[in-house]
Parts: sequence; C-alpha cells; structure tokens
Amino acid sequence: MSEYRPLRVALLGAGSVGAEVARLLLEQKEELKSRVGAELELVGVAVRDLTTKREGFPKDLLTTDVESLILGADIVIEVMGGIEPAKEYILRALNSGADVVTANKSLLATHGTELFNVAEQVGAQLYFEAAVAGAIPIIRPLRESLGGDRVKRIMGIVNGSTNYILDRMDKSGISLEEAMAEATELGYLEADPSLDVEGFDAAQKAAILATLAFHTEVPLDKVYREGITSITVAQMKAAQRDGYVIKLLAICEFLEADSSGPEGISVRVYPALVPRSHPLAAVNGAYNAVFVEAEAAGSLMFYGSGAGGTQTASAVLGDVVSAAKRHVAGGPGLSNSTHAKLEILPISRIQTRYSVQLEVSDQPGVLAKIATTFSKHGVSIEAVEQSVLSGKEVVAYLEIGTHLASDAALAAVVEDLKASDAVQKVASVIRMEGL
Amino acid sequence: MSEYRPLRVALLGAGSVGAEVARLLLEQKEELKSRVGAELELVGVAVRDLTTKREGFPKDLLTTDVESLILGADIVIEVMGGIEPAKEYILRALNSGADVVTANKSLLATHGTELFNVAEQVGAQLYFEAAVAGAIPIIRPLRESLGGDRVKRIMGIVNGSTNYILDRMDKSGISLEEAMAEATELGYLEADPSLDVEGFDAAQKAAILATLAFHTEVPLDKVYREGITSITVAQMKAAQRDGYVIKLLAICEFLEADSSGPEGISVRVYPALVPRSHPLAAVNGAYNAVFVEAEAAGSLMFYGSGAGGTQTASAVLGDVVSAAKRHVAGGPGLSNSTHAKLEILPISRIQTRYSVQLEVSDQPGVLAKIATTFSKHGVSIEAVEQSVLSGKEVVAYLEIGTHLASDAALAAVVEDLKASDAVQKVASVIRMEGL
Repeated sequence: MSEYRPLRVALLGAGSVGAEVARLLLEQKEELKSRVGAELELVGVAVRDLTTKREGFPKDLLTTDVESLILGADIVIEVMGGIEPAKEYILRALNSGADVVTANKSLLATHGTELFNVAEQVGAQLYFEAAVAGAIPIIRPLRESLGGDRVKRIMGIVNGSTNYILDRMDKSGISLEEAMAEATELGYLEADPSLDVEGFDAAQKAAILATLAFHTEVPLDKVYREGITSITVAQMKAAQRDGYVIKLLAICEFLEADSSGPEGISVRVYPALVPRSHPLAAVNGAYNAVFVEAEAAGSLMFYGSGAGGTQTASAVLGDVVSAAKRHVAGGPGLSNSTHAKLEILPISRIQTRYSVQLEVSDQPGVLAKIATTFSKHGVSIEAVEQSVLSGKEVVAYLEIGTHLASDAALAAVVEDLKASDAVQKVASVIRMEGL
Repeated sequence: MSEYRPLRVALLGAGSVGAEVARLLLEQKEELKSRVGAELELVGVAVRDLTTKREGFPKDLLTTDVESLILGADIVIEVMGGIEPAKEYILRALNSGADVVTANKSLLATHGTELFNVAEQVGAQLYFEAAVAGAIPIIRPLRESLGGDRVKRIMGIVNGSTNYILDRMDKSGISLEEAMAEATELGYLEADPSLDVEGFDAAQKAAILATLAFHTEVPLDKVYREGITSITVAQMKAAQRDGYVIKLLAICEFLEADSSGPEGISVRVYPALVPRSHPLAAVNGAYNAVFVEAEAAGSLMFYGSGAGGTQTASAVLGDVVSAAKRHVAGGPGLSNSTHAKLEILPISRIQTRYSVQLEVSDQPGVLAKIATTFSKHGVSIEAVEQSVLSGKEVVAYLEIGTHLASDAALAAVVEDLKASDAVQKVASVIRMEGL
C-alpha cells in the first residue's frame, strides 16, 4: 500500500468514550498507520467548556470552535450523545464531505433515516457499530455478512443494566429494588433509570437492528415496549422451578401474512421466559448478546461486553479504520438500504407462547371454567400446574403454559379471566421465547 | 441508488455449496438487485463433466469452458475445493480483474499470501468469509470491526465434526470409536477422517484467523497440532467430575517477550479442558464458536453453524453482495495486511495450565518424589487428588493440576515422570484453557 496523506480526525465529545478513543488514536498511531496506509491525525477535540479539567486529552487539542474543527476534518467522531447539537454537527460534517462515526443510538433511532439520506446524497458514510451492543460486531454482520441471506428473526439482550438486574434477581433471589440499588452503585444505572428499566434503550437498539435486518425504516414509536419494573421475586422463582430464566429481549421478526393481516415485521421489547438451554440464557451480568436466525445461515449468536468506555471505543475505532481505509482506497462505500418498506405490525399480530399465573378459589369446577375461557379465544393450553398457597387455604395457585397463540387472543383471555368470579387475581402474564 | 449494469457472476463448482449458492442467486434475484443496486446475473456454472446428472442447476448454465466463463465475469465464486485447479482459476480470475469469493480454506491456508498479493497488485478483491466457521461472520469482524483494537487471544471451536464427537463422548459416555462411527453415519466425517480428527482442518482455520488477527503471515507448518484421537473415556469422566469439558481448540495468542525469548505469536490446535462455566463449553453438537479477547473490546464470542451447504452458501452470498456493492460504488476495497511480521513461536513458549494423571505404586513417599519432579522444573502444583484404582490394589491414581507453566517445563516434567520408578504410567497429560 503506498503512502497516503494524513487523515484529519475530529472528535466531538470528551466523556469516558471520547477519552478512550483519543487514547487509542494517540497510542496506536504507528500501528493504525500500518493498518490503514495513512496516518490518522487527531486534529481536535470539541468541548463545551475549556476550563473544565479533563484527564487524558492533550490540552492543545481541546477546542470550543466546533464549526472550524468539523470543516477541516476527513473523519468526524461523534460521542457527545443526545439529539442536539449532535445532529446539527453530524449534518454539518456530512455536508462538508466528511465521514461520520457515531455511537449515538438515541439519535439514530429517532433521526437515523434523515441522516442516512443526507449521507447518501453527498456520498459520505455514516458508521454506527458502537450504537448497538457496544463492542460486539453486530451492525457490520447484518449489513454485510448476511447481505445475501434472509433474516427471519433477531432476539437480543441489548441492555446490560437490565440484564445485570435480572441476573442478580435470578442468582441471589433478591428483589427488583435491591438489584436496582446494586446496579446504581456499580454505575450501571443512571440517576433516572427509566431509560434502561422501562426498555427505552432496548427499544432504540431494536429499531436500529430491525431497520438493518429488514431493510425497512422503523420509527421508534412503532416499537412495542415493556420494561422489567413489574418482574417479581415470585416470577423469578417460578421460572427457575420450570427451567427458565427471565431476560429482557429485543425481538425483530418477520411475520408471514395470515388470516389476521398482511406480512410485515414486528419489533418489540419485553421481559420473557427463555429456556435455560438456550444460548441467550447463559448471557450473564452486564454482557450483551444478539441471536440471529437467518434462512440459509441458520442460528448465529454474537456475544460480548455491551457497554463501557473502552468497549464502545473499540467499536468506534473499528469504524474509524473502515472510514479511513475508504479514504485511502476511494469509493463511496455502502449505503443503508430501506428499500423493502415492510409494514410494521402491531403487537396483537405476533404469535408466541405464554405463561399465565392465577390465584383462584380452591373449589370444584374452577379449572374447567378457566380452561373454557382459554379455548373460547382459541388459545390451546399446553400444561397446567396447581398448587395450594401456603397460609391461604381457600386459594389455589394455577400456572398455565400455552401453545403458540396470538397476542390478541391471549389479551382477550386475560381480560375475561380478570372479569371471572373464579379468578381472584391474575398474578402474572409473561411471554415465552426461544422454545 | 441509481440503476447499474447487471453484474456477471460465475460459479466454479456444482457440489452441495454450489447448488445452494445457485439457488439463492436465482431465487432471490429481485431482492439482491434491490440490496446491491445492480442485478446479479449467474452467467455460468463450471463443471468437469456435462453428462453427470445435477439437480438444481438450469442446464443451459452448465459449462466445461472455465476459461471463457472466468474471462467474462465480474465476480467469480470458487466452491470447488482442493488446491488445483482452484488456485489456477482464482489467479486467472483476479488477473482478469474479477473479484473472487472463495470458501476454500486449504487453499488459503497454503497459498493465501500469494493470492492476496496478486489481488492487491491488480486491485481486485478476494473474499473468504465462508472459509472459516461456515456462516459465522468472523473474518469481517476481525478484518474490520476490530481493526482499531488489539487482539490478544482467539480460542475457537472451528471443526464441527470433532466437536460433535467430543460432545457425544461427554454426554453419552461412549468411546471415541463409537462417536466417530456415529459422526461418519451422519455425514460429519469423510471416508478419511484424519483431516478432522487429527486437527488438520482446525490448523488451517487457525492459520487464517491468526494471519488476520495479528497481521502476520502464518505458514501452516508453523501451527502446532494435536488431534483428538488419544482422548479416552477415562479422560472424559475425569473432566466431568472436575467441572470441565474437553474441546478441540484452535488458539491464536500474542505472547510478550520473556526470559525464554522474544515477543511473537503462538498458533496451535489441541484438545483442552475448558471449565463448564466458559461460553465455549456450551457450544454443542456440530456448532462452531470463536472466542476473541481484544484489548479494548474485551471478550467477544461468535457462535453458529460451522458447516453445511446452506450455511456456507449464506457466507458466500454475503461476500458476493459485498463484492457487488463495491462494483456499483467503485473503489478497491480492503487489503489483507501482513505488515506486522511477528515471529511465530514454538509450542515450548506458551504458558498454560496442565492436568496430569499418573498411575503410581501405592507406597509411602511416592507423592513426595513426584512433587519434587514438578518443582525441579519450576512447575507449581495447584491441586492433587489421589484415588485407589478399583481392582488394582497396589496401584494408586494421581490427578495433578498445575499453575501456569511453560510447555517446555511441563514437557521436561513428563519426561522425568516417565523415567521415574515411582510412576507406573503417565495416563494422561492435557492442557487447561479458559480459566
């Protein structure tokens, strides 16, 4: 490879990821030069305030003049987070012809299509491997390796904080509140934890993954979302007893046309029972994993650290190297295709299995009544387990597992159960995946 | 994306992978056109003999005129296998300016550098995702996603046949011979099984992975190799008892300079004890997985079907789409860098843990003698377990686990043990990885 002019790299953001990116760029300068065929010169780091003390950045690289920094750059790395001014800076960079590397999942999930359209128009590239599942290479395999295959389904554990919380509840029998307190102490949860525990973060990543896998724009408000805040110790114990583990899953699935509607895709986030023998069940702590089922490739899984400054920085650097090689070698690279324009279907269309737990009066005929309610809506029961609650002798506890049923049918069953005088309480309804 | 002229795709080889590639190219023609921005036209399938009956190929596409087929192609897919004439055809294709997609690991492991050099000289691309671990995207992540990171170690289960055999021995307690007979019946083993069970196939893949991970050419004869043919039911049982599983691992590792020599890389294949809690331990049946440890990214694992016509075809198609997009978008793409030129170190340099099983005379002082032999060579013992063999009352059985030690030191210990009058038999020496 012949010598090429140095490539000017601008870094927007000086947080933990930015610091690690800067460190890697500076420390591995020679190595990166050999790999790319050109020097990667960090020309500046945009910060809001020059007076803040910042470790790890050469002082003369810090600047508040973001406009000039962007204008002179070949590659712009955005690790500031948030929507604005990140979006404005990225648009400015693309329009000036620079390639952009971003780790900003909220921005991509909300304004991704606009950004990709601008990139395509001007012939620049927008890289975002770090936006989903940290250092795990999942964007590139979906964009490229599976480019000749048909993805049928993706099931991902894409939020490390909630996986840590659920894993602790599973392993130690502690409550959600206790596990959340631990996660906060370890820095896994923000001061406002709802982004994680209500599933918003996972929903953003699901939207990005679904867009790539199904070549269809997926607006965030079309992603069905349930968080983990209702998960109880009792549900965890029941899951363990039956050989399952509860995981917060981001699911992107292609659904064939059926009697209830046309073909399309379902993109959803919810806690679900996963059999302990499934590869996703073994994803512990704050790790992430993405399980992909494709027509020809079969089942694939990508596993690794989902978060953390160094891991995210590794993914960012990988993208920087790709962008730099493209500069050296020429050519506009790949575009983000949304040509398929599949319909995004409501949650009522999905077919899955359910575990329903009921507190019922311990009287003859109760089970028959309940079974009738299920069959009325066409939901077939696979297994029933009955136990008497200790200390509550007039109440029995029913655990009902269903065969595949539509979410609409199951919702109708649950509504009827709540109104039934045989049922004292619908204690838990949880979906079962990976069977 | 604007309309582009149809791209001419030539297929060399009409076996099970070739048939699946042809099927996908023909059936998904419209879908691929949308993704790529140009039609992928299968212009011919090279076969040795036109009279052989072949299912699944349009008859008018079959040809024995390989030279003309290659000359008119934009993208040449080589799925014939073997060294010649595959090598000659690939060189011819590259020299005519075509991009080449190959699944031929033996060819890459033996003549890869020559092929990559030619590709670089003429500005063509050589893709080979399908050559390692079937449909699992591992080549692209190593080439690109981790392009800005430093790989420290790769541990892979890259041969599905041997993983199936070891898994069956573990799960059912059957012997190696019985498991091999099963694998042969299922079509997992060839008539001559030595390519798999002696570790040659895994060694080829290790050479390819190490070249990518460490930017260093790795000749096949520098890969240390042990197969699984000496694995016994007794070793399997001992592994289970101690919480381990035996896996055939392909390991590529960077070693720092130490008192015994300079820095460099170790590339090796051998069966090893892996703790059951390690993600690799859960890789069952004929599945493959590659575990990567990188400086910034931390631990990553890539998991999926390692073999099979459809899986390999998926990987081939992914490469074809990459090559086609490069045609549409222009630019010479990526090159295979071997700039680092690290030294490839002998097996004696590695540091790992060992499990040594000995049959010894059941007499006072024996353990002291044996412990002295270990310490004489600087190998520190972590645990000793002694049991009396049933039915052999004068013989005791010693199982010794070591701390980290060099292979050279351990080899010296074993040599002394064999010569010692306290030892009746060195029953088993097996390395321990993933601790």
